Amino acid sequence: MSSGLITSRRNRRTPYTDRVETLGVSGYSIVNHTLLPKSFQRTLEEDYWHLKEHVQLWDVGCQRQVELRGPDASRLAQWMTPRDLRTMQVGQCYYAPLTDEYAGLLNDPVLIKRACDWYWFSIADSDVLLWAKGLALGMKFDVQVSEPDVWPLAVQGPRAEDLVASVLGDRIRRIRYFEFCECAFSGRDLVVARSGYSKQDGFEIYLDDSTLGSALWDALWQAGAGMQIAPGCPNLIERIEGGLLSYGNEMTRQNNPLEINLDRFCHLDGEVDYIGRTALETIASNGPSQRMRGVLIGGPPCPPCGKPWPVTVGETQVGQITSATWSPSFKENVALSLIQKDYWTAGTQVTVQLPAGDKVKGTVVTLPFDTPNSAVVSGIS
Amino acid sequence: MSSGLITSRRNRRTPYTDRVETLGVSGYSIVNHTLLPKSFQRTLEEDYWHLKEHVQLWDVGCQRQVELRGPDASRLAQWMTPRDLRTMQVGQCYYAPLTDEYAGLLNDPVLIKRACDWYWFSIADSDVLLWAKGLALGMKFDVQVSEPDVWPLAVQGPRAEDLVASVLGDRIRRIRYFEFCECAFSGRDLVVARSGYSKQDGFEIYLDDSTLGSALWDALWQAGAGMQIAPGCPNLIERIEGGLLSYGNEMTRQNNPLEINLDRFCHLDGEVDYIGRTALETIASNGPSQRMRGVLIGGPPCPPCGKPWPVTVGETQVGQITSATWSPSFKENVALSLIQKDYWTAGTQVTVQLPAGDKVKGTVVTLPFDTPNSAVVSGIS
Repeated sequence: MSSGLITSRRNRRTPYTDRVETLGVSGYSIVNHTLLPKSFQRTLEEDYWHLKEHVQLWDVGCQRQVELRGPDASRLAQWMTPRDLRTMQVGQCYYAPLTDEYAGLLNDPVLIKRACDWYWFSIADSDVLLWAKGLALGMKFDVQVSEPDVWPLAVQGPRAEDLVASVLGDRIRRIRYFEFCECAFSGRDLVVARSGYSKQDGFEIYLDDSTLGSALWDALWQAGAGMQIAPGCPNLIERIEGGLLSYGNEMTRQNNPLEINLDRFCHLDGEVDYIGRTALETIASNGPSQRMRGVLIGGPPCPPCGKPWPVTVGETQVGQITSATWSPSFKENVALSLIQKDYWTAGTQVTVQLPAGDKVKGTVVTLPFDTPNSAVVSGIS
Repeated sequence: MSSGLITSRRNRRTPYTDRVETLGVSGYSIVNHTLLPKSFQRTLEEDYWHLKEHVQLWDVGCQRQVELRGPDASRLAQWMTPRDLRTMQVGQCYYAPLTDEYAGLLNDPVLIKRACDWYWFSIADSDVLLWAKGLALGMKFDVQVSEPDVWPLAVQGPRAEDLVASVLGDRIRRIRYFEFCECAFSGRDLVVARSGYSKQDGFEIYLDDSTLGSALWDALWQAGAGMQIAPGCPNLIERIEGGLLSYGNEMTRQNNPLEINLDRFCHLDGEVDYIGRTALETIASNGPSQRMRGVLIGGPPCPPCGKPWPVTVGETQVGQITSATWSPSFKENVALSLIQKDYWTAGTQVTVQLPAGDKVKGTVVTLPFDTPNSAVVSGIS
């Protein structure tokens, strides 16, 4: 669904907003009080094919960083996530869900370890800054919690490596998935991570000086002239096909990590203490009551999913679709839904109630749609 | 500025969204991950005159409530705000800025005291829920912190009292400014406060059951049939003329309460302890280095202020305009800006640099524009 967005300073611009405006951005979302460009005068499907075949620059400055720095930085980071951080090395990025005392998800950031006493949470859409500040203050931890002047720019698509290498040097080719190195740009040493909210490979460049936004954008843009480079954004089709979840859409504070298949990021029955551990261990021992699944929906291309669509079996509601789209690859609608325990087996036949009231048949499948049983990663959308 | 807004479940609907869609909402903003209707196919000026002459229903469900409940609720509430809460009574609403340890503003909510151990912060645009939860957890306070199923609906304009009385009874006429009483509606006892983000009088009805959203809207809408009732929203012209500030626009975490003229809401050199007290007392003893002021800008109607406009005297930047509009009442542009100490005296002549690059003359004035030296109140916009 789209409507007008009335902006003000409260919905912050990024260092790249001038450039995306020049390139004809036609729609935004708001993430972390910041503009996220979401469309550029191409259809969703045109953008999908472009992302899978070429290379795109994404203004994901809305992925704000929450910096923990000081003697208690490691202690606070570990207390905030069920993920075991004990063996995390400097140079690694960890997908690290954050839970409250009930094991409800507060965010699902990527944690970046810059030094032994220096971390960034690269966050989805909630004010983790206030959470971390509140915890640190309440616990009297010796740590500085801040939002630094750091603005990720994502380069995504099969040509991303060539493009970034041409600007930042060939050493970026050796960066492994979810690792980073520091690369010189205009007098700064920028964190460059192999990561991003697509399955098409790519990098996220953590620009740490907002005055260099246009310079970084322009350097990449010019280097991409022969690669059909285009401005882009997280693509709904590509992310649903790939089983990439979105905080606020597929999961909220009402959900725990296990029901959205994050088991392998949760340290259970071990020695690591974190907020929500007791609650999460109880959920684990009982087993979650619902799980995130894919749903293939029959019929013609479905409309956008602006509010959840009930999923039923007979008279029983067994879930709700939170994201859905027509897949040009599958020639079918693909959707994401939490599905109750007795119905989450792949192959279960369900009914989906579309917003106009019509009911269509659906089939429960495992995620991601393309390569069953592989990991589900998450991010913004 | 307006552009397309691409919505998803992450940008939450309110119990009133169905109704505002039916009534032709044409633009939204996002506040607290929630839709705030911002335009209804009338011009800003048409909406301004309507608000000043008739009555409007505003979907301000985005003013989420952060509930503190339990033995330590008072203790936590007081720790979060510089305002002295010791004499606050059940039934009162307090404008209560929230500060961090540096006295930086985290939000400027209205605090509602429902019982001795039960408070709601009715918040502007930041996740106070996470701040309060983090503090409570860190301090091991005995308090439940939650976001209840409560969705304010504002009735604003000179006919607001007549309209609300016709639906909820004549006792609402006796509610004083920033006080509330409970009124029966459809089996619920709703908090009804005389408050709202305009200077035209009105009420905020705190619906505590989202399934009754359409029923409440319809009851008020039908009762307003003879009053030229219309859907509305915080009006930029009216709020700037009235000196109503907006968190995220006029103030951020980088600002302290004194520089935005909230002195009378700050308990200094007293017995009450709160987060940021030491920092705030230091600022108070040195005096703030800048203050919020109005600026009258010459020339033709200015464009919307999507990014701050520099305010200069000679070669020196002395402030930045964060909100601005043409005032049909003043026949001049009215704007809000923090202005540095040596330049904040009313009558100071300044230069304002508009986004297209042209420079226009401006005059510093005290707030609000219409009645100098009266209080500045704040809210969302």
